[in-house]
Amino acid sequence: MEQRISLVTLGVADLPRSRAFYEQLGWRGQEVEETVFFQAGGLALVLWGRAKLAADAGVDDAGGDGFGGMTLAQNVRSRGEVDELMATAAAAGAAVTQPARETFYGGYAGCFADPDGHVWEIAWNPGFPLGPDGALTLPDFGATG
Amino acid sequence: MEQRISLVTLGVADLPRSRAFYEQLGWRGQEVEETVFFQAGGLALVLWGRAKLAADAGVDDAGGDGFGGMTLAQNVRSRGEVDELMATAAAAGAAVTQPARETFYGGYAGCFADPDGHVWEIAWNPGFPLGPDGALTLPDFGATG
Repeated sequence: MEQRISLVTLGVADLPRSRAFYEQLGWRGQEVEETVFFQAGGLALVLWGRAKLAADAGVDDAGGDGFGGMTLAQNVRSRGEVDELMATAAAAGAAVTQPARETFYGGYAGCFADPDGHVWEIAWNPGFPLGPDGALTLPDFGATG
Repeated sequence: MEQRISLVTLGVADLPRSRAFYEQLGWRGQEVEETVFFQAGGLALVLWGRAKLAADAGVDDAGGDGFGGMTLAQNVRSRGEVDELMATAAAAGAAVTQPARETFYGGYAGCFADPDGHVWEIAWNPGFPLGPDGALTLPDFGATG
């Protein structure tokens, strides 16, 4: 299996509401067959009805609307960008779950939840270089294994 | 907010078990401070203790171990690759939640769940071009909005 992700799909309760939320953050997507696709670097972020997503995956959905055990992050280039983006998200109706703060790894980050509770962290991490297009390259941690 | 994702973090119950699972799929990562980082194109897939992830995000974790409402997908270049990868995942201990089958969009896909129930779809979708490095480019759906 190659080390790459092609799609990240967020199950949503109300597609127009979720699309409007991401558009307020500045994202622009395409809607087709009750699915919204956003190009995000070399992959796509997809919004799709949660029940359809569960059925398509062949899994039961207990209907939890809390923490799903998987989070997304966008790393930015400065502390100021973290503050700006957290403010944009709050203005768009996000729940700020973790106000921006200094992190244990010497960075600065905050978290918000989208209308369905999907968590995004917005982080400035000086140890994780970003390319001109925003692509992230992990450093060599010097780990043995 | 730029349209990109820097990190996808999977909350896990047993880090060595999860690391071993992804290594059986062929992924190679680095472990530092009880966190495993895998470079995945221009982003990183991260394995971290679920309780730590929830605390860091400032969210309550009801401890659900079912569907979390967010899925990952890897698109591959042929039907045969879908079958191969699903077999690799099953051999690594994944639960096959959706055996590979024809899809409504003219592709072929199956789904499996990792040791914590995080769902991956493995798909061949002739409508979504993949670059030489596996980067996915969404087509123009001709959608009006």
